[in-house]
Amino acid sequence: MRLCGEIEVRDREETLINLDPIQSGGRLTADAMKAVIAYGDGYSVCDACGKPFRLDHIKKPPLDAFHRDLAAFVNMDVARVVPGARRGFQAVTHTLVEPGQPVVLTALSHYTAFLAVESAGGVPREIPADGDHRITGEAAAATLEAVTREFGSAPPLLMVDHFDYQFGNEHQVREIAKAARQYDVPVLYNGAYSVGILPVDGKALGVDFVVGSGHKSMAAPAPSGILATTGEYAGEVFRTTGIRGDRTGRTFGVKEVEMMGCTLMGATVMGLLASFPHVRERVTRWEPELENARLVSDALASIEGTTILSEVPRNHTLTRTDTTGSFDGVARRHKKKGYFLTSALKDRGIGGLFPGATRVWKYNTYGLTRRQAEHVASAFREIARENSIAVR
Amino acid sequence: MRLCGEIEVRDREETLINLDPIQSGGRLTADAMKAVIAYGDGYSVCDACGKPFRLDHIKKPPLDAFHRDLAAFVNMDVARVVPGARRGFQAVTHTLVEPGQPVVLTALSHYTAFLAVESAGGVPREIPADGDHRITGEAAAATLEAVTREFGSAPPLLMVDHFDYQFGNEHQVREIAKAARQYDVPVLYNGAYSVGILPVDGKALGVDFVVGSGHKSMAAPAPSGILATTGEYAGEVFRTTGIRGDRTGRTFGVKEVEMMGCTLMGATVMGLLASFPHVRERVTRWEPELENARLVSDALASIEGTTILSEVPRNHTLTRTDTTGSFDGVARRHKKKGYFLTSALKDRGIGGLFPGATRVWKYNTYGLTRRQAEHVASAFREIARENSIAVR
Repeated sequence: MRLCGEIEVRDREETLINLDPIQSGGRLTADAMKAVIAYGDGYSVCDACGKPFRLDHIKKPPLDAFHRDLAAFVNMDVARVVPGARRGFQAVTHTLVEPGQPVVLTALSHYTAFLAVESAGGVPREIPADGDHRITGEAAAATLEAVTREFGSAPPLLMVDHFDYQFGNEHQVREIAKAARQYDVPVLYNGAYSVGILPVDGKALGVDFVVGSGHKSMAAPAPSGILATTGEYAGEVFRTTGIRGDRTGRTFGVKEVEMMGCTLMGATVMGLLASFPHVRERVTRWEPELENARLVSDALASIEGTTILSEVPRNHTLTRTDTTGSFDGVARRHKKKGYFLTSALKDRGIGGLFPGATRVWKYNTYGLTRRQAEHVASAFREIARENSIAVR
Repeated sequence: MRLCGEIEVRDREETLINLDPIQSGGRLTADAMKAVIAYGDGYSVCDACGKPFRLDHIKKPPLDAFHRDLAAFVNMDVARVVPGARRGFQAVTHTLVEPGQPVVLTALSHYTAFLAVESAGGVPREIPADGDHRITGEAAAATLEAVTREFGSAPPLLMVDHFDYQFGNEHQVREIAKAARQYDVPVLYNGAYSVGILPVDGKALGVDFVVGSGHKSMAAPAPSGILATTGEYAGEVFRTTGIRGDRTGRTFGVKEVEMMGCTLMGATVMGLLASFPHVRERVTRWEPELENARLVSDALASIEGTTILSEVPRNHTLTRTDTTGSFDGVARRHKKKGYFLTSALKDRGIGGLFPGATRVWKYNTYGLTRRQAEHVASAFREIARENSIAVR
């Protein structure tokens, strides 16, 4: 169906069970959809903006309270909305990192963390993953020690994902933060795959910055996200402007430099806001999500020649699997080649996998009902059997 | 009407003629509204993202062609979508400006231009406005000369608004760019109040960067905007990542550092895209917009004690007026105080002015029909007469 011009209506979420690795946590709630319709216009939230003219002070819609709620949600002191988690990373690296200084991140860090380091002129130093693709506190301590020796002083920042984008594995954030504290290194917690889908307590983890993604895990339109921090660092990362016009003497009030003033003035922040009560509630239902994830990963693992590359049992709904020894064998003799798998899944109402992938690929079961998860699990087994692959 | 929770439905655009200074150019078109509904979910445009995995390469929806269309629209060579004009400024200052270097902007530059300079560590030097609040080529040349002497070398960047946010006055961009060229200084054109509402030709103006705002002037949701540049500067401001994981050896392909990879992955870019055919057409209808603007500014000027502070005749729909000698006199004796004016306008179906403002205030007539503009003009005259102010 044509939406307008050459744009097709998007119906992936309406017509298929979507296993896309990055989309499921960002599906809008019904309330977010209503908010996006009512507040779609550009500067829609600025109707009642008054002194001191900053997004987080607007009372109608209740963005001021929302900012406080966001901070409390991740148990930090101060929060701001940002145009995506990556802009949260950027605000922090630009605040703390001088050109030439090292930043510790991990062998599984997302590319946007690297870009944030690069844009600040920092030098990346990765904490290696262990044999199970996990980042440990021990490895963090060793890397911090090595980097401190290499550069003659401790790095100004360590960035760690709670769950990484490659395997969806859980990393030892608490232990890593403890190690960082011994070197007096502030820690940025990348919650792109956690904030909004499972409970996150920044203080309990001992981190200094919590970053979340609206479009990845908070049921909001892109680009959106949050950056939360402690009272200690809020004054730095949310410092207000100090620049002054040399001719006019103009100054610019309480605008925050790293935020570039206001950030999300319409549909994006309203999507976050309207979804928030649902998001706050859904994080308490992480266990059933994990049960669904395990149901599907168990089904895949039961197919001969298939390996779950992520940690098992699954602690996240994002999973990486290797079907080189199973579905890829079929692909090599099938007339549809690699597309046989996506095609067979589509026949069963399942979509969102990378088209043609039959070797190493990722999927995400987040948001599936139990029945949908069972259907997906059965579908993988069925497709294996139909193609003469043994299922245990 | 309640949307959900404590969020009210926004109906300003449905129930009133909206004169808000910053909102009119960002009202969604009907097609943008449809696109926002169909593509509201987080990473909605990533359904068919394939190698090399970058927003401007996506073919379905046709974002690749859209990026080329955007560049052509402002007659530049390369364009990217960004999370608001301010993020376009930031990308340019972070590319060209070293800490301590001067950046020439103007006595009427927007605060976000200053923040972009501040975040890069630059030192602002303002081109003064003339007595009519206009920035001339002559003043630019004098400032460039003075700054070059002060710092011992030419500044790395000059930023100028085509129309400023304070008066909506038109500035001598072509002459300013000519002066900059003599000092070999690249020019950033801030088209937040032009790109999307009137024709803009970057090459003809002789500028190096064209920045536009989606939510201010391109009928798109916030935050959105464009940054376009020449072939000469595209390689710098859109440089691809060169960072490398020290342990894993990972590199990050064609991701662009200043863009932080992809920028607008859903509702925002789809709003821009769906509105684009309408935006491209509406810029050719700038003359009738100016006629409406002049109709209203003439009406205000006909009210005794009222001054149009912007240049007259109006060359933009954004106008600054001083009613200290007219409506403010009423406010001082009226039981509703300053709110009498917004209240009287509201009774006539007109809204969007800063509540309580009766001295110096701004309004924008963009997008009004002729009949609406006539109604607004009459309303101001009527309110004056009703309050015993002479109307010429």
